[in-house]
Amino acid sequence: MAEKMDTSADRKVLESLENLGAGTAFADQIFSLVGHSQFFAEFNRQDVDRLAGYMRIYHAQPEQTIIREGDVGDYMLLVIRGEVDIYKRNLMGEQQLMTSVTPGMTLGEMSMIDGEPRFATCIALKETTFGTLTRDDMVKIIVESPSLGAKILIKLVTMLSQRLRHTSATLLQYMGSR
Amino acid sequence: MAEKMDTSADRKVLESLENLGAGTAFADQIFSLVGHSQFFAEFNRQDVDRLAGYMRIYHAQPEQTIIREGDVGDYMLLVIRGEVDIYKRNLMGEQQLMTSVTPGMTLGEMSMIDGEPRFATCIALKETTFGTLTRDDMVKIIVESPSLGAKILIKLVTMLSQRLRHTSATLLQYMGSR
Repeated sequence: MAEKMDTSADRKVLESLENLGAGTAFADQIFSLVGHSQFFAEFNRQDVDRLAGYMRIYHAQPEQTIIREGDVGDYMLLVIRGEVDIYKRNLMGEQQLMTSVTPGMTLGEMSMIDGEPRFATCIALKETTFGTLTRDDMVKIIVESPSLGAKILIKLVTMLSQRLRHTSATLLQYMGSR
Repeated sequence: MAEKMDTSADRKVLESLENLGAGTAFADQIFSLVGHSQFFAEFNRQDVDRLAGYMRIYHAQPEQTIIREGDVGDYMLLVIRGEVDIYKRNLMGEQQLMTSVTPGMTLGEMSMIDGEPRFATCIALKETTFGTLTRDDMVKIIVESPSLGAKILIKLVTMLSQRLRHTSATLLQYMGSR
């Protein structure tokens, strides 16, 4: 798998934030957030402990940039506390607010999976704590704990589905109002 | 898992199409379509044979409806041959063409995963052959063949990511042009 890509700019943004260490100490908080998916797997406590062990935790101050559009990145993040605004540059080069992301939601999973450049810029709106999970970690989880890997992937599919439903519905309103 | 939902209307639409039987006979064609994901798992021939064994294959004539917006459904489909148009009803109740789907792409995976009603109507544009995979099958695959389950889920995450990137970019154009 995977040719290596230059993720240094993306990492530099991450490393400018406060590093709170391994996710293990945050397993309680993560457990309270991951919730239950309606039809498929639920995360039990052992799953979350294991997942947390792969994560690194970071803290961002309000207005700190967490991810910058166009950088090549290979990790996703799970918002644990706070709130993150998602901005996308429009055709005139202006930053346009797309949505906000709250605890329990993930960000950056598209680049984690497909290796394409970051689609949007993510800026902390409040004091924000989040965990990161890299592509290499995800591959390790799938190999070492296939059942946990499947649960994470189901969670990602569910979230992407919801986001796609929401984005498509918004697009339709714009299309219909012309 | 899963309270049972009334999927009879959705099934009725499916059963109005020509049923070509189990997917096993279509494994060659499916293998040539699933391709390779860039960073993660690739489907080998054994995976595809196994996946095809879970699928049912259907054939639709041009203009036949395959999925109807609002129905509660629990399967996704993989287009094997032909082309499918995706329509969504806008605020004025008119069907609006959202996109077209070609061989190798999936449809209906959102309802398969999250159990929400079908988001859009899918109509065959040409003679179209497709395979279906139900939620129950997906659960079975994850339990019986976790590594294949992970590969399918990665494929879904990748496709949803690409679709979300595309839809968000289109939305941004509309937002920016006001």
